[in-house]
Amino acid sequence: MKSLDLQALLVHTLKDVYFAENAILKALPKLAKAAKNAKLRSAFETHIKQTEGQIKRLDKVFKSLNLTAEAVPCEAIKGILKEGDEVAEEFSGGVALDAGLIAAAQAVEHYEMARYGALRTWATELGLKEAAGLLQETLNEESETDKLLTKLAEGGINESAEAAE
Amino acid sequence: MKSLDLQALLVHTLKDVYFAENAILKALPKLAKAAKNAKLRSAFETHIKQTEGQIKRLDKVFKSLNLTAEAVPCEAIKGILKEGDEVAEEFSGGVALDAGLIAAAQAVEHYEMARYGALRTWATELGLKEAAGLLQETLNEESETDKLLTKLAEGGINESAEAAE
Repeated sequence: MKSLDLQALLVHTLKDVYFAENAILKALPKLAKAAKNAKLRSAFETHIKQTEGQIKRLDKVFKSLNLTAEAVPCEAIKGILKEGDEVAEEFSGGVALDAGLIAAAQAVEHYEMARYGALRTWATELGLKEAAGLLQETLNEESETDKLLTKLAEGGINESAEAAE
Repeated sequence: MKSLDLQALLVHTLKDVYFAENAILKALPKLAKAAKNAKLRSAFETHIKQTEGQIKRLDKVFKSLNLTAEAVPCEAIKGILKEGDEVAEEFSGGVALDAGLIAAAQAVEHYEMARYGALRTWATELGLKEAAGLLQETLNEESETDKLLTKLAEGGINESAEAAE
């Protein structure tokens, strides 16, 4: 019989977030290329490197559980990224494009924070200290990225989007 | 020519979140029915009423902009809810079901927090005080719901999921 306990849920969700991180890594260069503001472009470029690190960290989490990293399709991130693409396309050439890109990226960050928060809590409760520590590191990074995006949004990008076309 | 400024982005995102809230309202009774823990079931039931209020609040936001409430398909919430359904199905009958339901609900809450956060910031920058105030109210509610779910997860539901099947 298939195990349906908390450890099984943890492993399932790790595979989900492994898929998500790889999908995000593939999507980020498009966001960086689309961004008009140099600081925003640079933030996306930094997050590409950070995401590569987060994938390596997930490899370590799998290894700490004596498992090989594996992905299962994550419908949530597919939907979130698809919606971001739609906004990027719809507002392409408009003054609010960067504001839309930031909002799309923050939807991604918030999804990841929800997932890493649950994963970290479950790992802690299961006494998986190494995994819990690694997951906390990524959670902190995602939270910092979200704050940086808010700062960029409030620091002039939105104001420049207020001009009538 | 179609307007692509911040106000247009705000209206587009309002329609997106209007779709999302209605989809969430439709999904919540399933979550409440599936929950095994009485406190979790009750939290989902409370959130049904809260979501109805949030939809009415969005009607007011549209009205404050002299618009009629309207929805555009939100791919993100479709994906997030689909993923929640999959976990509920896969872990149905297992001890980790409630932990999985909480994580699914927190993914929804985090998506909403990202959206309402952006909407509130844009409304404030555009000087739309009434809209900004209404959006902040919902943002506070979503944030409180997320905290309540974390409390429930840490308050015993996960521990009971640790038992081997």
